[in-house]
Amino acid sequence: MNKKRIVIALLSLAMGVSYSWAQTASSIVEDFKPTPVNQPGSQFPQVNSEGRVRTQILAPEAKRVQLDIGAVKYDMVKDANGLWTGESAPQDVGFHYYQLNIDGASVPDPGSLFFFGACRWGSGIEIPSNDQDMFAVKDVPHGHVHEVLFPSKSTNTSRRAFIYTPPGYEKETSKRYPVLYLQHGYCENEYSWPNQGRANLIMDNLIAEGKAKPFIIVMTYGMTNDISFGGLRNFDIKPFQTVLVDELIPYVDSNFRTLADQKNRAMAGLSMGSMETKSITTNRPEVFSYIGLFSGAMFNPEEVKDKSTVKLIFQSCGSKERPDGVKQSTEALKKAGINAVSYVSEGTAHEFHTWRRSLHQFAQLLFK
Amino acid sequence: MNKKRIVIALLSLAMGVSYSWAQTASSIVEDFKPTPVNQPGSQFPQVNSEGRVRTQILAPEAKRVQLDIGAVKYDMVKDANGLWTGESAPQDVGFHYYQLNIDGASVPDPGSLFFFGACRWGSGIEIPSNDQDMFAVKDVPHGHVHEVLFPSKSTNTSRRAFIYTPPGYEKETSKRYPVLYLQHGYCENEYSWPNQGRANLIMDNLIAEGKAKPFIIVMTYGMTNDISFGGLRNFDIKPFQTVLVDELIPYVDSNFRTLADQKNRAMAGLSMGSMETKSITTNRPEVFSYIGLFSGAMFNPEEVKDKSTVKLIFQSCGSKERPDGVKQSTEALKKAGINAVSYVSEGTAHEFHTWRRSLHQFAQLLFK
Repeated sequence: MNKKRIVIALLSLAMGVSYSWAQTASSIVEDFKPTPVNQPGSQFPQVNSEGRVRTQILAPEAKRVQLDIGAVKYDMVKDANGLWTGESAPQDVGFHYYQLNIDGASVPDPGSLFFFGACRWGSGIEIPSNDQDMFAVKDVPHGHVHEVLFPSKSTNTSRRAFIYTPPGYEKETSKRYPVLYLQHGYCENEYSWPNQGRANLIMDNLIAEGKAKPFIIVMTYGMTNDISFGGLRNFDIKPFQTVLVDELIPYVDSNFRTLADQKNRAMAGLSMGSMETKSITTNRPEVFSYIGLFSGAMFNPEEVKDKSTVKLIFQSCGSKERPDGVKQSTEALKKAGINAVSYVSEGTAHEFHTWRRSLHQFAQLLFK
Repeated sequence: MNKKRIVIALLSLAMGVSYSWAQTASSIVEDFKPTPVNQPGSQFPQVNSEGRVRTQILAPEAKRVQLDIGAVKYDMVKDANGLWTGESAPQDVGFHYYQLNIDGASVPDPGSLFFFGACRWGSGIEIPSNDQDMFAVKDVPHGHVHEVLFPSKSTNTSRRAFIYTPPGYEKETSKRYPVLYLQHGYCENEYSWPNQGRANLIMDNLIAEGKAKPFIIVMTYGMTNDISFGGLRNFDIKPFQTVLVDELIPYVDSNFRTLADQKNRAMAGLSMGSMETKSITTNRPEVFSYIGLFSGAMFNPEEVKDKSTVKLIFQSCGSKERPDGVKQSTEALKKAGINAVSYVSEGTAHEFHTWRRSLHQFAQLLFK
């Protein structure tokens, strides 16, 4: 794309006018392929080697159809049969939520699988990355993801959790395992880590490579979406802390073969889940010894009450977020004598590929 | 709806013209409520006490928006703000797939959760029934649904199965359980029974009531959708039979605490899954002793090779399907000395409520 086109595009965006990428068709690399998160048999959406997304939808009577991804709406173009086609600008590697806009209606793309993010189930797309092998389905032993409904007196409900048990868990019936409690972000839920996060496949592969100790991962809904709009400051950790520490952990410890003590328990979370992790591990230091904060909260050394009980503080973000903040905070923790590790995901922003990579790094440091 | 309106509606349908239910607004009972399968926080779709579905979508620039359910497209009506609202005719109780049509584009309703049926993930709706309590989430012990990836040499893939283990399975580590292999229908997949089928909740409740013995349920993809269009006659059972009997059953028997013999193994399926069940239990009589055929295949007495090894043949369908066929076939089996049971689901057709009820009945007869 030349400078003139960039100026036109930026002006169009600034003026609230959608910019038609069809104008740049000659510059698009024509090596689009259907993605691994398409609906079974669906030829669209597709992604090319530049990371552009192309999709199609039949809408013969529509006046305007747009592909809405990365906070930009790209006009699609109609052919004589009423089939609309359009492409986005190149996207960062990894997973992104997106939708279509048909004559003003925001709807999922029926060609994609659906994922929970942005506070709803909607379309997702996978842009190939050079490290996607870390969550590929390989011919290795696979753990199980258990969907459980655990009793919660404090909320008077049966609540869902997904529990990853590592390969061999069902057979080695005398072995007990450490546990990581892993939280999603705001407007996501307990499906986010096993689905778009690919937590189970990341673990299967790490364990097969001998890079991580086998452990259990527990993923439940962090009640993050129940706060009122703009109310992050008013978020009260107590109700979720009660569910997690006083209800879910006892359930897991009595229904799974866990090593049920502080030194064998970790908590981590992404974005708002990292804020929850920081609060809960601070409030209940006798429960967790390993702490992971992905793209959000960070610790100051003076916030760590008892350094002797903290085995690890891992802090990470994408290179397109605030990597300097993560690095500086981690250096300060190290100087204070705390075992702290920072990680920066190259070329990614506040999105799930940053968090997959963060889990991939963090998991290798746990329970060793 | 009076006779004149019925005639108009039928004529409209016959002429391929959509009939606007807005014309009958005065006759619609205004007690619509959001449904249990709505997206979190979504106020639409809604269902009223007549079983009508009402939904809304903002589409300010659209010319025509329709609610497409039960093979009928109902015109929706636009207000001054571009918000479209529309209602369907009363639907049968239970679960139905549906979609929206926006200026010719068939898309999921973003207000609903998504289910796999009609060969794709799309919108689903739940019409209240007088027996919906059978799959309600109650304060009873809950089993787990394990997502597993099992190795399949014959297809050179890791294949997904969902495996229900009953309440207590994780704790009573010396107990072994019988197993039901449960198949979905054409254009459905391994998610269909645990999601819209609610198989795990039906079992949790039956076990809590003491009406069913605790057993394991295994649900995997029946490869039903891989046949070419119109090719049911060309469907070859062999590839799936190999996956199920020679790969999945050994995996389950070595990874779960099963009672691994013929008298503790059942197979059932709905629609095309019932055809698979009939073929596989006929081809491999040494593997299964209990057989459930929901809305599809039926046995003639002469097709049962060795009556002594068949403990039960259960045949069912909805009252809006061919209940006489099911009853007659079952009577013939009984006369031939086979333990056969028929069941007819009152007021339902070839849909999931028929199959939930069938499982609810069948489960009470198993392994006793």
